[in-house]
Amino acid sequence: MTSTLVLLRHGESTWNAENLFTGWVDVPLSDKGQAEAKRGGELLREAGVLPDVLHTSLLRRAISTANIALDGADRHWIPVKRDWRLNERHYGALQGKNKKQTLEAYGEEQFMLWRRSYDTPPPEIALGSEFSQDADPRYADLGSDTPRTECLKDVVARLLPYWESAIVPDLKAGKTVLVAAHGNSLRALVKHLDGISDENIAGLNIPTGIPLRYDLDENFKPTNPGGTYLDPEAAKAAAAAVANQGR
Amino acid sequence: MTSTLVLLRHGESTWNAENLFTGWVDVPLSDKGQAEAKRGGELLREAGVLPDVLHTSLLRRAISTANIALDGADRHWIPVKRDWRLNERHYGALQGKNKKQTLEAYGEEQFMLWRRSYDTPPPEIALGSEFSQDADPRYADLGSDTPRTECLKDVVARLLPYWESAIVPDLKAGKTVLVAAHGNSLRALVKHLDGISDENIAGLNIPTGIPLRYDLDENFKPTNPGGTYLDPEAAKAAAAAVANQGR
Repeated sequence: MTSTLVLLRHGESTWNAENLFTGWVDVPLSDKGQAEAKRGGELLREAGVLPDVLHTSLLRRAISTANIALDGADRHWIPVKRDWRLNERHYGALQGKNKKQTLEAYGEEQFMLWRRSYDTPPPEIALGSEFSQDADPRYADLGSDTPRTECLKDVVARLLPYWESAIVPDLKAGKTVLVAAHGNSLRALVKHLDGISDENIAGLNIPTGIPLRYDLDENFKPTNPGGTYLDPEAAKAAAAAVANQGR
Repeated sequence: MTSTLVLLRHGESTWNAENLFTGWVDVPLSDKGQAEAKRGGELLREAGVLPDVLHTSLLRRAISTANIALDGADRHWIPVKRDWRLNERHYGALQGKNKKQTLEAYGEEQFMLWRRSYDTPPPEIALGSEFSQDADPRYADLGSDTPRTECLKDVVARLLPYWESAIVPDLKAGKTVLVAAHGNSLRALVKHLDGISDENIAGLNIPTGIPLRYDLDENFKPTNPGGTYLDPEAAKAAAAAVANQGR
């Protein structure tokens, strides 16, 4: 028995367009991001990859991407599950800061350590600050466990319990599962699926708005390692562009 | 203990604008309908009525209305449940037909019987016809039980099990529940809540896009019979307009 998992990274947000670190700040899609989501839905429809259930983060750029894409694929009516464990990496005190200015202020080495190291989180965000989530009602159940910064290792640690407890059961039930999420929560998932090392995950960029299909065996391991982009040419071009962000 | 239930009828669809019987045909919101949904979200936000969970039908005009309204109220991240039992009344063989032409072809008496009688459904829609749902994957689990026509009595009969099994438990848990649905599925629910007779329900019109709040006691009976519209003036004007549809 095999099952189908589809990963979809949200399209451009208004803060992507302004080159700001976003993390858990809940910014909307830009017009370009909405167009990317629409294209994502067309790709699902054209490929006949029809999700039976949707999993999203609690952030509107992923939620809107899924809403737009599923509406375009005529699958707007499928069941939805949302969880903070699919959220983007929390960028700590960098949230709301300009990427270029951060690079200039802290230098290339520190900048790349925060962006790409596996286990070095940025400094914690201050409680009560404009871009922190300590008073956000959607995380009320987390209380003082609400993250104040995260490295990718932290994202892997909080994502995997959701993978096991919520996504795998849907796959076991034979459902085609769509996960609409973020650059780093999807990198964390792909790291697990493809068995990528802590070192090598730094080099992996997932392009926005292009559905990535994994065909999984009975142990939920990919029979197509690395997955299959529904638009391979666009994925190649987009991954190169993501790698140059902040330059 | 009291709980809060909010009903939201979807905004204008493209077929409302064209004066066609819609029923289970899955048409999108018009631009006006999208603006109504946005206004519905503003009303929720301004009133501080913040849903904790959403229930919708399987039809995109209700789903989109909820998505737009919740995004505007900053509640896009709440859990979602969808069920066919919240769908609009199935209009049978009238689906896809022009309301004015139907009125002219069948006469006022037959027209009003189909539109407003409690227990006389229109003729069944033919299997395989352009506007039937027998091959629609979202109703695959219903199989041959997929409705081919419904009167309001039928809607009450299929709605109440969902009210009891899915909505009441959320209210019992103390959640503020938003139900985004349709003219007739909401009339069926209001009939139950307010104890309206089979005769008197014919005179009840629920306006589109204006949240209707019910405060419920421990027996899930309204302490504000008839509910409270979050924009009472607009509700009065809109209800009058709905009553004149098809004229």
